[in-house]
Amino acid sequence: MSSEAELLRDPLGAVVVGPELFASALGAQGVPVRRVDWQPPSVAGGLSSLWCDAVDAANRVTLDRILGAHQVLIDVRPAIDVVPGLTRETVLHAGPPIAWERMSGPMRGGIVGALIYEGLAATWQDAERLVTSGAIRFDPCHHHATVGPMAGATTASMPVLVVENRTAGNRAYSTINEGLGKVLRYGAYAPDVIDRLRWFRDIVGPAFGEAVRRAGGVDLRALIGQAVQMGDECHNRNRAASALLIKALAPEIAALDLAASERRRVLAFAASNEHLFLNVGMAACKAALDAAHGVPDSTIVTAMARNGTDFGIRVGGLGDRWFTGPAQMPEGLYFPGFSAGDANPDIGDSAITETAGLGGFAMGGAPAVVQFVGGTPADALEYTRRMYEITLGESAAYRLPALDFRGTPTGIDVRLVVQTGILPQIDTGMAHREPGVGQVGAGLVKPPRVCFDRAFEALVQARASAGSAPRRA
Amino acid sequence: MSSEAELLRDPLGAVVVGPELFASALGAQGVPVRRVDWQPPSVAGGLSSLWCDAVDAANRVTLDRILGAHQVLIDVRPAIDVVPGLTRETVLHAGPPIAWERMSGPMRGGIVGALIYEGLAATWQDAERLVTSGAIRFDPCHHHATVGPMAGATTASMPVLVVENRTAGNRAYSTINEGLGKVLRYGAYAPDVIDRLRWFRDIVGPAFGEAVRRAGGVDLRALIGQAVQMGDECHNRNRAASALLIKALAPEIAALDLAASERRRVLAFAASNEHLFLNVGMAACKAALDAAHGVPDSTIVTAMARNGTDFGIRVGGLGDRWFTGPAQMPEGLYFPGFSAGDANPDIGDSAITETAGLGGFAMGGAPAVVQFVGGTPADALEYTRRMYEITLGESAAYRLPALDFRGTPTGIDVRLVVQTGILPQIDTGMAHREPGVGQVGAGLVKPPRVCFDRAFEALVQARASAGSAPRRA
Repeated sequence: MSSEAELLRDPLGAVVVGPELFASALGAQGVPVRRVDWQPPSVAGGLSSLWCDAVDAANRVTLDRILGAHQVLIDVRPAIDVVPGLTRETVLHAGPPIAWERMSGPMRGGIVGALIYEGLAATWQDAERLVTSGAIRFDPCHHHATVGPMAGATTASMPVLVVENRTAGNRAYSTINEGLGKVLRYGAYAPDVIDRLRWFRDIVGPAFGEAVRRAGGVDLRALIGQAVQMGDECHNRNRAASALLIKALAPEIAALDLAASERRRVLAFAASNEHLFLNVGMAACKAALDAAHGVPDSTIVTAMARNGTDFGIRVGGLGDRWFTGPAQMPEGLYFPGFSAGDANPDIGDSAITETAGLGGFAMGGAPAVVQFVGGTPADALEYTRRMYEITLGESAAYRLPALDFRGTPTGIDVRLVVQTGILPQIDTGMAHREPGVGQVGAGLVKPPRVCFDRAFEALVQARASAGSAPRRA
Repeated sequence: MSSEAELLRDPLGAVVVGPELFASALGAQGVPVRRVDWQPPSVAGGLSSLWCDAVDAANRVTLDRILGAHQVLIDVRPAIDVVPGLTRETVLHAGPPIAWERMSGPMRGGIVGALIYEGLAATWQDAERLVTSGAIRFDPCHHHATVGPMAGATTASMPVLVVENRTAGNRAYSTINEGLGKVLRYGAYAPDVIDRLRWFRDIVGPAFGEAVRRAGGVDLRALIGQAVQMGDECHNRNRAASALLIKALAPEIAALDLAASERRRVLAFAASNEHLFLNVGMAACKAALDAAHGVPDSTIVTAMARNGTDFGIRVGGLGDRWFTGPAQMPEGLYFPGFSAGDANPDIGDSAITETAGLGGFAMGGAPAVVQFVGGTPADALEYTRRMYEITLGESAAYRLPALDFRGTPTGIDVRLVVQTGILPQIDTGMAHREPGVGQVGAGLVKPPRVCFDRAFEALVQARASAGSAPRRA
């Protein structure tokens, strides 16, 4: 086998297997291309086995549950009191399961920060010792009805948003968004990061919780529907949704039995954080998708999540399995002083927004987000239009004025992704690859195709071995 | 002369003088059309006299002042303390000057309500006696650096928003928006309407004022710029701007030395009012346009306003004269229970938003407003595109993502209106034609063309008689 250096000395050529698009794109760049008219033998036969009444019926049930979800923010409570299966020695993290050894810098930074915040460690070295001793259990947020942006570190004493899906009765959880800059979710763990988390625990969480309860809850389905008509896609643009959330809670926060200076500080923090709504919206998406997960034969994606090393998806009819591949590098715009070499691969549970028909899938209604993630308003419209090709439904609640009030594309079908070669479009924040730094920019990214290929194979196998009695996931 | 009945018995035909558009539209409807290739003799010669360096230079100065305005909400104070020239016996009203005898129902209703609120009358009859006795002075808001939506009734003890144009140093004023339904500005004057105004005077006005001062002012240029990227056109859609204003003030209101129940009530009122920002934005537009008014030779429109009977415009180089014509009937969507026969002709100072490049001129960025005023998102884009044909500049502060961040069309040129036959596109609320009822819907309307023809004639005459020394307006 020749060394890498030798390999790269020769002009590169390409053998393109599959979509004509790739071949013509390479050709246009002057790269010699040999076309091979081939697709994996399993695909053609597999597709025909999956385009059947049983799968269609399962997908209809799944889609109805996603589209029919009615999410309400009902409380803010310490995680340990409400998140199922959480213990004081557990650190929940974003994405599919991963061991400490394979974790990226920002994921480790977030976890170390969480351990310091919980008083389980005083320093990085302390925390690392604790972790490698096996005293700490890591588990994906997703396994606990929870979602966390970026590193997603969630521990016992953190206040979490409680979102109830009134249609199905299930609940989902997420921490309170910390704002931009040096924050735990981007892997920062300096004392001011920890201090902010303690203030959340002592003041902000209880204040938000009391305000939400006094307000009788906040209807998130309606709020997101409004925000989508105000140019948010609720992943990288949460400006409208955050303002609407503040508008809903400010009257109650203003009347709390707190010192005037703390009432002011809580609302000033909320007003300064244009991503305040991100975690709320993520929990709303999770509440819809958890209710839809577990329908045998369903080929609809019910989670897309990244831990900074792996990208993983879960599929409605495939139980608790994750189908993973390497997390990709987002392409986008960097904050001053940072560039591509600083960025970590794709990380965080926030792709739950795309899974539920928001984020990149709703960019057509959020043209101003291109100032943050790159591209043009026309690109944003095109991303949304393309996502209709791999989704089975359209939201009744989230409608895009720019597309004549068409509902956002919702319900990613593994069959359609494999058949069209079109991958879900995600827009995302970018973390520094080293712990302790924070956000370096925002951009666009896609899942690795292999996640869908693997899920597809599993679906085909499941169909083949299903017999007459469908398995229960 | 035949009677009307006889006239209408014969099939209608048309003689079309001027734009081909009209002839072809009639032709398409099967109406016989005779085309006459004619325009008023003054127009061709007049246009050539106005397309000259002196006018262009004056318009550049005017436009720079409009586009360069930096408006900041700095206070909320009782009108009598801040509005220039106001007395306790004055009622300011919307639109160009008008006597009681010619006032429409909602204008009279608003004025009667204001007199009852000020304790100058107890009943409609009382108020009418007072008015007809000559004890009350009526004056346009516009003559006092003030703007009022719909009836626009503004009196001494009403709290007014104080907007400073930091670039030019001038200030403009407007009352606090009351919300929808039965409100003074739509001509309602029932006890609950008056009670709300008293609560504004005693609680809301002082609370807003203190909050604005503690916040160090609210940058309206920046806020409107954000709102325009969030789907507001700041005339009939103020959802984003209102939420952003609440976000800016809530921290300070929450910390005020008021009873907890009043802090809550003030913010709950603000949160319930999606048009909270309307009056703020109108004062911001007025502050920009007042600073631009008064440049000799300028052909740029510096005010468009309606009193429910007349539509009037003012022009930068034509001093304090109004050029008026009959207020038109808006066409749009009616609230349940109302129809076209209930609506009053066009009323209010809110067309100041269009004059400053917002409202109908920014509809292309506010597609969701069509749910309120009628039409489709494509229509909304087309309205904005067409307004570039009669404006001389584009806003640097208000940019439309849907048009690739192009600035909104700003600075209506009387020359271009006359030359193209395109009239400014206004989107507006509709008042019931009887006093005491309130809003019946919202829709689209245009000024009567005669306002521009008359202003054009005045401009041509002024140029002809100017000689070498331009007059000072």
